[in-house]
Amino acid sequence: MKFELKGKDTGSKARAGKITTDHGVIETPIFMPVGTVASVKGVHQTELKEDINPDIILGNTYHLYLRPQTNILKKAGGLHKFMNWDRNILTDSGGYQVYSLSARRKIKEEGVKFKSHIDGSYHTFTPENVMEIQRAIGADIIMAFDECTPYPCDYHYAKRSMHMTHRWLDRCMTHLKKTPELYGYSQTLFPIVQGSTYKDLRMESAEYIANAGAEGNAIGGLSVGEPAEEMYAMTEVVTNILPEDKPRYLMGVGTPINILENIALGVDMFDCVMPTRNGRNGMLFTAHGTINIKNKKWEDDFSPLDEEGTSFVDTMYSKAYVRHLFSVNEMLGRQIASIHNLAFYLWLVREARKHILAGDFTPWKDKMVKQMDKRL
Amino acid sequence: MKFELKGKDTGSKARAGKITTDHGVIETPIFMPVGTVASVKGVHQTELKEDINPDIILGNTYHLYLRPQTNILKKAGGLHKFMNWDRNILTDSGGYQVYSLSARRKIKEEGVKFKSHIDGSYHTFTPENVMEIQRAIGADIIMAFDECTPYPCDYHYAKRSMHMTHRWLDRCMTHLKKTPELYGYSQTLFPIVQGSTYKDLRMESAEYIANAGAEGNAIGGLSVGEPAEEMYAMTEVVTNILPEDKPRYLMGVGTPINILENIALGVDMFDCVMPTRNGRNGMLFTAHGTINIKNKKWEDDFSPLDEEGTSFVDTMYSKAYVRHLFSVNEMLGRQIASIHNLAFYLWLVREARKHILAGDFTPWKDKMVKQMDKRL
Repeated sequence: MKFELKGKDTGSKARAGKITTDHGVIETPIFMPVGTVASVKGVHQTELKEDINPDIILGNTYHLYLRPQTNILKKAGGLHKFMNWDRNILTDSGGYQVYSLSARRKIKEEGVKFKSHIDGSYHTFTPENVMEIQRAIGADIIMAFDECTPYPCDYHYAKRSMHMTHRWLDRCMTHLKKTPELYGYSQTLFPIVQGSTYKDLRMESAEYIANAGAEGNAIGGLSVGEPAEEMYAMTEVVTNILPEDKPRYLMGVGTPINILENIALGVDMFDCVMPTRNGRNGMLFTAHGTINIKNKKWEDDFSPLDEEGTSFVDTMYSKAYVRHLFSVNEMLGRQIASIHNLAFYLWLVREARKHILAGDFTPWKDKMVKQMDKRL
Repeated sequence: MKFELKGKDTGSKARAGKITTDHGVIETPIFMPVGTVASVKGVHQTELKEDINPDIILGNTYHLYLRPQTNILKKAGGLHKFMNWDRNILTDSGGYQVYSLSARRKIKEEGVKFKSHIDGSYHTFTPENVMEIQRAIGADIIMAFDECTPYPCDYHYAKRSMHMTHRWLDRCMTHLKKTPELYGYSQTLFPIVQGSTYKDLRMESAEYIANAGAEGNAIGGLSVGEPAEEMYAMTEVVTNILPEDKPRYLMGVGTPINILENIALGVDMFDCVMPTRNGRNGMLFTAHGTINIKNKKWEDDFSPLDEEGTSFVDTMYSKAYVRHLFSVNEMLGRQIASIHNLAFYLWLVREARKHILAGDFTPWKDKMVKQMDKRL
């Protein structure tokens, strides 16, 4: 993996970059659509590639491990071939999902024992086997195994957990070296900064992670319920320490506004289920604010779904039509909203990149944040 | 509306025709995908047009009347504009849906009083208001209001009901003449033959309908649970009487085999929810039989979904991948299966047309019926 910085904003820490892997180029800042279990929900691979057009998508190790299971992914020749996606993929480490299963898991130094949400069967994730699982899945960027602490989190718990995450990173790196790549292309490991919402812990963690010398670095444990201001404060602390010449990935973030604010703080990569999950519930993100398309006010609004939208759905369907689809619970409504939102997120990060390169990111960002903070 | 016969099979009553309306040409035999409530479930209008490529789709008057309601469709400028579909549309009359609501409706000479399945509100369909509703929806081909009898049906009930359907037809025709078209293009009324599974009633009804002198004629009250042989026997009786120079539409039929057998009996038009409904349940129709894609046997079959399929989904996705999508209940699985099945149905009727024109329909049909009658 190669990372080149192509431009820096003057009014903020925002950067435009270019990651190159064996599956092609990723222009940053980038938003990665979430394809939890080998599918970006409601979106065909053709639409994803040709209409939404991200350079990279995300898969979830926990879900893929349970179904279709790694033996099937191995037989398929990896996730790219299994789902027919020839661009980049990143997989998380399973740490976040295991954290979400709070009642069903037990965290120890060795690893995490958890109960499958599907059939209640017991499984264990360790730094070692998570590396093996991610080899089998075959994403281009793979994540270190970490513990994602909840919010709020007791200081002493956060500190102990962070130190364990650091020890787990060492085990991940050691084991990954011993575990060969399976499909003839390179995989790059990103370590994860933890430390909850404590500035000193975040600094300590960022320094530990920076010293690991990875090709890219991630910030975890945010977007778990803390106020946006705390999230931004932690991002800022961490991006001041993480090396400038490596991409920075803020995990699980967020709203369009969160994304712009974190780009301003020096983050390059994002993922979030919000565009698809909220889309399936009828919430549309636009450059001028959010729309609840289920609202009766759209009933006879035959204007395009989003006059300024870049996706085919934005001009092909009217607000009244999509409102109708939601009111009769038609699948197509959920499909349209998912595509619209993902296309909007991708448009947003591409615009951010343009403005970073043009040198006017900060005023543009301030205008957009104001504009998008409305309900239409 | 214009109908031209382009070719006739020698070994059967199969015909190839061409219907021309203000929304373009419909080559027959044709299968009409069902867009119940202004959406072919799980299929984007782009995919419908470019991939599945039918000349005509169907909408359901009952559902459209309840939601989005005719006032919205009128404001939109009709269903074509509302859903952004510029080819032909046919709407049923609501008779079949009202029949399906058996516990919630009361049939009288005047019309049918029924309770909405959505909010329990009371509504009445009469031959007159169903013509007005279909004017507001604005389909190219609209259906007379009929009573669809169940199977089995008492002879005397079937006879009385059929006579009422005939009287309703007269009322439909009278009222339609007084009800102007709203959107600047023509709408053509098809009357419906009833008579349950009684040969003499079917003959009487077919003669009545034929004498009405409509531009096209339909056969209703079949595919309601009767054995296929009874369906074919009734179709045969009716197509012997209905005029040869008008298109014949067999409502609600059926499996791929049903369709070929009825084409052989002189039917030109079909519609059925089977390709989408069964698709959503994981059943795929192919030229070599049906596939239950949920079956474990496909778990590691990485061959294309349908090697011979004409849709993009057939080569883009593997059987193992689609099996996985169903096993994790991903929307995309239902989308893929729906598109595959519809594309297969359209391929089938187009192939039938080619073979009718080439003069070898009957041997091809016999081969296909044998081939398709398998579980893979």
